[in-house]
Amino acid sequence: MTAKNREWLLVKRPQGMPQPDDYQFREGPVPEAGEGEVVVRVYYTAMDPAIRGWMDASGNYFTPIALGSPVTAVVLGHVVKSDYPNLPEGTLVSGLGSWSEYAVGPGYYFNAVADADKHDFLAFLHPLGPVGLTAHYGLLGKAGMKEGDAVLVSGAAGGVGSLVGQIARLKGASRIVGIAGGPDKCRQAVESFGYDECIDYRAESDLSAAIAKALPEGFNVFFENVGGRILEAALNNMAKGARTVICGMISGYNATKPEPGPGNMWNLLVKTARIEGFLVADCLGTPEAEAMYAELSQWLRQGKLNYKVDVREGIENIPQVFNLLFSGEHDGKLLVKITDPQNR
Amino acid sequence: MTAKNREWLLVKRPQGMPQPDDYQFREGPVPEAGEGEVVVRVYYTAMDPAIRGWMDASGNYFTPIALGSPVTAVVLGHVVKSDYPNLPEGTLVSGLGSWSEYAVGPGYYFNAVADADKHDFLAFLHPLGPVGLTAHYGLLGKAGMKEGDAVLVSGAAGGVGSLVGQIARLKGASRIVGIAGGPDKCRQAVESFGYDECIDYRAESDLSAAIAKALPEGFNVFFENVGGRILEAALNNMAKGARTVICGMISGYNATKPEPGPGNMWNLLVKTARIEGFLVADCLGTPEAEAMYAELSQWLRQGKLNYKVDVREGIENIPQVFNLLFSGEHDGKLLVKITDPQNR
Repeated sequence: MTAKNREWLLVKRPQGMPQPDDYQFREGPVPEAGEGEVVVRVYYTAMDPAIRGWMDASGNYFTPIALGSPVTAVVLGHVVKSDYPNLPEGTLVSGLGSWSEYAVGPGYYFNAVADADKHDFLAFLHPLGPVGLTAHYGLLGKAGMKEGDAVLVSGAAGGVGSLVGQIARLKGASRIVGIAGGPDKCRQAVESFGYDECIDYRAESDLSAAIAKALPEGFNVFFENVGGRILEAALNNMAKGARTVICGMISGYNATKPEPGPGNMWNLLVKTARIEGFLVADCLGTPEAEAMYAELSQWLRQGKLNYKVDVREGIENIPQVFNLLFSGEHDGKLLVKITDPQNR
Repeated sequence: MTAKNREWLLVKRPQGMPQPDDYQFREGPVPEAGEGEVVVRVYYTAMDPAIRGWMDASGNYFTPIALGSPVTAVVLGHVVKSDYPNLPEGTLVSGLGSWSEYAVGPGYYFNAVADADKHDFLAFLHPLGPVGLTAHYGLLGKAGMKEGDAVLVSGAAGGVGSLVGQIARLKGASRIVGIAGGPDKCRQAVESFGYDECIDYRAESDLSAAIAKALPEGFNVFFENVGGRILEAALNNMAKGARTVICGMISGYNATKPEPGPGNMWNLLVKTARIEGFLVADCLGTPEAEAMYAELSQWLRQGKLNYKVDVREGIENIPQVFNLLFSGEHDGKLLVKITDPQNR
């Protein structure tokens, strides 16, 4: 056995959409676990839009990826070397690894997967991973969605949005309207993800009017994954006291200059409404997060939560696959399979 | 005695800054109190930026002023005719009247002035009127300012802003930075209104950098009265979990097309921060409002609250005086004296 490690390093800060020469593919020995570290054999890695922000020099809300280091990403895998007593060798973990066959990092970057035998393996990178907590925490915790609320969600067929629609349904929202790009995504949102209606923003010349038609009395909660003109259109359609939570703004992640903001911020005053940004990291490790996880796990076992993954093969393809996030050319939560779990 | 009533009617919807021919000056008989109404002899009327919004067809957050009707405004005066048992003739009241010598309206538009003998007359149109409640409710109620918070306030020398600085001081803010237009206003903010420092936005080519210099760790609370480029500059300077409350956006009130919004809304997510609009009307009549009023009244009697009024004379001058709000050419809360209280 000639165990080796292949991985993608970030070698340049992308300008706009990441390009092939922003990365370098490196082959080397399997890393050792330094003090307090673990080495994780990676089976799957999740393509998250947030990674794009971490590639910038500012890192935005996380430490920027150092040039010459592997690209940071959420992974699922087994601990194969450990200097971290809480996670001995053989533990199935998810957490913040990298675009590597063997990811190395501080033990506290990873969590043992609970109830690994009760769920499909990939659930731990979707409803039972950061994606699921993001949907639950944002909708119920930050936006405070209550029974009877009218809910609007952008990126309705995306990883987070597909769960938000269903959680809103399970918690008694009066009406759930999605916004997505293209008829296929809109159909999925309605058929599989709990939406009453889904607006194809690519087909609407007047998005604000389309939202008004779908939600004549406005929304109580808007779960925003996209930003740009979608945010502006939404802010024209707030009910009194509306709460908008910003989970992401994928429309601007590859922008080389800032997009102009919504010109209708005044409506926040007219409607005594609020906009709030949040990061799932703020709830990780809290008792609330455990309760959310338990509820998601229960819904999943009861068959009340659908989720869809789009698994692409091969570590060598990650950079191309990553960019599909921004063109929207994927069908479900985008994952890359690095190593077959059967082969461990 | 030939009692008559003179008043300003709105006869055209202003485009941009209001013009003389948007109004008509009418002289007629003193109105009668219809069912449930009172007639108030007006001594002073307050020039509030919000009135500009009520002149628009949408009215923004209040019923628009009907064309051909007197311009709605907060007034202070005595009830001279009453069909509203709670407010008999002779009661000193403040409330929503109009640009009239005798304002007529539903009794519930007005409140009897409490402790009229304990305060200077004009205090009831400033710290003990809607202006004072706006400052208190916005800063402590909506933004939840706590001891040790760093506070930023735009329009720092204006009616509301001049009180916000002092309330922040009284409640133990760690640092209070104002933004105002011109050196005189900035000096007042620091000398009289509780500010540690005041930024003259007219003198700063890089307002964001000026705020960063004054608040190196960012603000916890931003009390926004102005909007436009000031809002954008502020959003670059948020501490984690910052709360921005929008009280007004005077920079845009006479705009004929929407100003572009802040291009850095993304920071809300990076800082898990929020922006919230509010209307003082939402707290009026609540027990909380009574408690706020009592606290403001106590501070005032204890000499802990400064306020400054700029009183102009004569109902015939209201339209010109009103426009001074938007050029900033006034020094203190702008009021117009309609009738001398001694002459009643």
